[in-house]
Amino acid sequence: MIIRVSNRRVLIDAAMGRIDHDLILFNANILNVYTGEILHGEIWIHEGFITHVEETDCLTVTGKALKTIDIQGAYVIPGLIDPHVHIESSMLTPRRFAQAILPHGTTTVVTDPHEIANVYGIKGVQYMHDNGLDSPLRQLIHVPSCVPSVLGLENAGAVFGPEEIEKLFELKMVCGLAEVMDFIGVINNEERMHELLDVAHRKGRFIQGHAPTLIGHELSAYRLGGAASDHEVTTAKEALDSIRSGIYVDARDSSIAMNIHSIYQGIKSLRYLDRVTLCSDDVEAQDVLEHGSVDALINKIIQEGMDPIDAIRCATLNAASQIKEEALGAIAPGCVADLVVTDSLSVVKAKQVYVSGKLVAENGTLIEAMIEKEDPLEKQNSVILPELSIERLTLKAPIENGEVKVNIMAYDTATSSMTHLSKEVMKVKDGKLVFCDPDLKIVAVINRYGKDQLALHVVRHFGSQEGCIASTVSHDSHNLVMVYEDPKDALIAAKHLQTIQGGMCTVNKGVVTGSLALPVAGLMANVSVETMAAQSEALKVQLKALGLTKLENPLLRIVTLALPVIPFVKMSDMGCVDVINKAFIPLYE
Amino acid sequence: MIIRVSNRRVLIDAAMGRIDHDLILFNANILNVYTGEILHGEIWIHEGFITHVEETDCLTVTGKALKTIDIQGAYVIPGLIDPHVHIESSMLTPRRFAQAILPHGTTTVVTDPHEIANVYGIKGVQYMHDNGLDSPLRQLIHVPSCVPSVLGLENAGAVFGPEEIEKLFELKMVCGLAEVMDFIGVINNEERMHELLDVAHRKGRFIQGHAPTLIGHELSAYRLGGAASDHEVTTAKEALDSIRSGIYVDARDSSIAMNIHSIYQGIKSLRYLDRVTLCSDDVEAQDVLEHGSVDALINKIIQEGMDPIDAIRCATLNAASQIKEEALGAIAPGCVADLVVTDSLSVVKAKQVYVSGKLVAENGTLIEAMIEKEDPLEKQNSVILPELSIERLTLKAPIENGEVKVNIMAYDTATSSMTHLSKEVMKVKDGKLVFCDPDLKIVAVINRYGKDQLALHVVRHFGSQEGCIASTVSHDSHNLVMVYEDPKDALIAAKHLQTIQGGMCTVNKGVVTGSLALPVAGLMANVSVETMAAQSEALKVQLKALGLTKLENPLLRIVTLALPVIPFVKMSDMGCVDVINKAFIPLYE
Repeated sequence: MIIRVSNRRVLIDAAMGRIDHDLILFNANILNVYTGEILHGEIWIHEGFITHVEETDCLTVTGKALKTIDIQGAYVIPGLIDPHVHIESSMLTPRRFAQAILPHGTTTVVTDPHEIANVYGIKGVQYMHDNGLDSPLRQLIHVPSCVPSVLGLENAGAVFGPEEIEKLFELKMVCGLAEVMDFIGVINNEERMHELLDVAHRKGRFIQGHAPTLIGHELSAYRLGGAASDHEVTTAKEALDSIRSGIYVDARDSSIAMNIHSIYQGIKSLRYLDRVTLCSDDVEAQDVLEHGSVDALINKIIQEGMDPIDAIRCATLNAASQIKEEALGAIAPGCVADLVVTDSLSVVKAKQVYVSGKLVAENGTLIEAMIEKEDPLEKQNSVILPELSIERLTLKAPIENGEVKVNIMAYDTATSSMTHLSKEVMKVKDGKLVFCDPDLKIVAVINRYGKDQLALHVVRHFGSQEGCIASTVSHDSHNLVMVYEDPKDALIAAKHLQTIQGGMCTVNKGVVTGSLALPVAGLMANVSVETMAAQSEALKVQLKALGLTKLENPLLRIVTLALPVIPFVKMSDMGCVDVINKAFIPLYE
Repeated sequence: MIIRVSNRRVLIDAAMGRIDHDLILFNANILNVYTGEILHGEIWIHEGFITHVEETDCLTVTGKALKTIDIQGAYVIPGLIDPHVHIESSMLTPRRFAQAILPHGTTTVVTDPHEIANVYGIKGVQYMHDNGLDSPLRQLIHVPSCVPSVLGLENAGAVFGPEEIEKLFELKMVCGLAEVMDFIGVINNEERMHELLDVAHRKGRFIQGHAPTLIGHELSAYRLGGAASDHEVTTAKEALDSIRSGIYVDARDSSIAMNIHSIYQGIKSLRYLDRVTLCSDDVEAQDVLEHGSVDALINKIIQEGMDPIDAIRCATLNAASQIKEEALGAIAPGCVADLVVTDSLSVVKAKQVYVSGKLVAENGTLIEAMIEKEDPLEKQNSVILPELSIERLTLKAPIENGEVKVNIMAYDTATSSMTHLSKEVMKVKDGKLVFCDPDLKIVAVINRYGKDQLALHVVRHFGSQEGCIASTVSHDSHNLVMVYEDPKDALIAAKHLQTIQGGMCTVNKGVVTGSLALPVAGLMANVSVETMAAQSEALKVQLKALGLTKLENPLLRIVTLALPVIPFVKMSDMGCVDVINKAFIPLYE
């Protein structure tokens, strides 16, 4: 347990009436998630903790406190908990992310700083930890388990082995091992994953799962590895099999994947729902502004048909139980005073949000601006590229003129991130490939961690029709990835991103047309959620102008191009990867 | 967590079909306590753990195993768990206790070796730990928190402070701190209890509660101390308040107190019952034979009206969740293969009992006799009395002849263990008190841990009409306690108990009329449950012959005479105790 009562004797004195309380909320309809009851009464709070809940019909306060607040008969529910979220996906720093979601009633997040870990390793995780530490949002951390995603096929900024995991377990807010994505490694008893699991088991830490499509024996085998949750459940059958196996289903609606609907179909007739939680996984700034946070997930599953009290329990007590934090997720003596006031339980909307007994947000707005926190890492430039030139960004052919057979990485559709290998004949002129089909582009993945390494290849059906699209957000290694036809545009894009210390940009005919600066690790910016949403929208317009019109969110196209765990062909800074066979595919036959 | 998968890779190999299983139970109706479903299918078991549950309509086995067992359509439920029991109350050694309750389907007990701790201290707990270690019954241990029950008012065989608690936390099967009985000390912030709680909090251990009558603020204050369960709940109101406060209610029906009925009245309309478990606390040999173990508790609460699936969940998953043992309490991959086969869920009766995948009992009988385990402690004589004589056991008056005013310890009724102070005038002849009223007796509490200490007093309404009743079972310090009129009988009784190394006996007119030998710590015997039941019954007959006819169980009368936490007047080896004021009451005014 991370969250603990540190001042037990003082709280006991308060509960026993030997000293006055700091705060009493009265005239409240309080949801007791242990029993499922709604009880009218008072919540007594001292030094950030709930010391007592007094059930009373009184509309006035009955206890003694320095301050009292009339809740006016509204409901009070526990602060909401998101058991799995990557803050980096919001492109906001942890403190900025906190500012964005707190007004929605989310008071605790369990984050997986997987992206920054791939960039900065241990010091990246430490930054996320420290940056979030004294924000009102409780930011618990699971230590990333798959850094890099595939060892030997890409160069990330760091490699996490058992030693790194063990070291990071010492951080104050770390509660477990984050999503064990290499489920194949687990069920095939590969040593790399099992060595990490061994550390978590030895240290008695929670192990978070990530097991898309697993059911039956394979799911059982994965469970035996120790994973106790899964947010990659997408079907009713997977949901049912997971809960039957004792695995918590973190029902997800993210900016990328909406699974709550299907999951609910699998669980709606179950007698017990203790092992269901709600998570956002990856959520963009714009979506926080438009839809919200865990509040939106609760309202979604209520709309699907779940009873509101069950739904709120999923997002509070169940999530706290998953990570064994007994002082979270309920309104009872010994719990932190993280509370949400809402006029309705069937549509949760945070009217007031309390964290540790302090009112932090009201009617969708933070009460006070969060204190800025300087960290040298935010100033550091993470984009350390090799020496680049037009020549280096040009695809050279093995012959001077004629035709060659090319192994092309081809997207299946305009929206899917799945790809296949397309063997095609291309023309060569003066030793260079000729791109006369606008559906074909050069793709470059360039190491940005100081290694003189880059890989060029041909991509089909990426979607852009002209110019260059470039990004330092490029899951999971976050090398610089660019898709272009004209190497001159690519060189301009690379230099621009280096100048703004990372981010995403578009270049067309020698001109930077769109730019989203993400100077913190090339992934995030220390700006408000509103600013980030506006800047992202502006870039989306430019991406669409270059041809990415088919995707609802064109930002997502390039960021998974170099993720060599998505079948079947992906790129890395070391070359074009045959995902299934974990091998490289040469450009030319 | 104490119970862990140690052979993960092997189990994964089994689940994936790379090696054959040890055992598959097929054609079973399996209760899934996570979902509340009953699923027909197979339980795949390897190296003591469940690796997979296959849902299938087949009546034949579909998986590969060295051995398969046809369950013939019966129900399979998880092994039953008793979250709070004192093995000493059965007067059987841990291995003998295991033999008694395993056939009833109880596969895990969480014990509080509180009694032997008062006799032998750390080595007593160690004995209980070691003796139970390789019996098929999983014997988890909570470290006794109140040794002795009241410091300074009695001499027990040991005193447990923070150091002893911390040392005992190192034992393999220890999971928490046992019943924190001094609830007054907790809510009044007395240092003795808080120092012990500090150790448990620092070590992240479970803290078991014991808070009779507490509701409201006092219950909140007690909860803030850290206690997470309570088996002393006796009323509907206490049950409801406890669960609302996040405290597990261990609903108890013991040989002494029957609380399940009242508790059920408080919880029957609750939406969630996750925090309800069932416990036996103190159970005598005869009651195990007649009524059973946790099976009887399940059947009782079903009779009260609880749904059978909820009831079984209380006695399995809920109990496991309380002590955070994830590998217990369910039938799912990664759980130990502790299973009970029963033909009915509405009346649970163990047809077969499996522990770690091994059939240990069938139709009420153990499959194989438990291996004897020698421990020098079982041979040791714990009854080390001062030099006794008729003179020392005689009540001397402060005058030679006449009348004196005497402070008498008087029982309220013939059955209650509550007492009050009765100031009475008694005659004195030749310097000794005259006992002409048969309702008055001498009570002696004699230190049996080598200290030359004894206290004599007068007791009214104890119940015996003649002879001497003596016992080394005498909660909680377990000094020798005797009630008698003729010091000659008392001397014979004391010498008899010393000879048989402890136990209980009756003496009348110079003859030992009844004797129950409890040579292990003066509390237990290494005999079968049947032998113990027969011997206890024989002694009860003799106790009744001496006048204890009003109590259903006359064994219980003497054993709480020296428990200085029961109001209002009790004895100790140091004198007569004013329980509330924690002071001594002189015999004469």
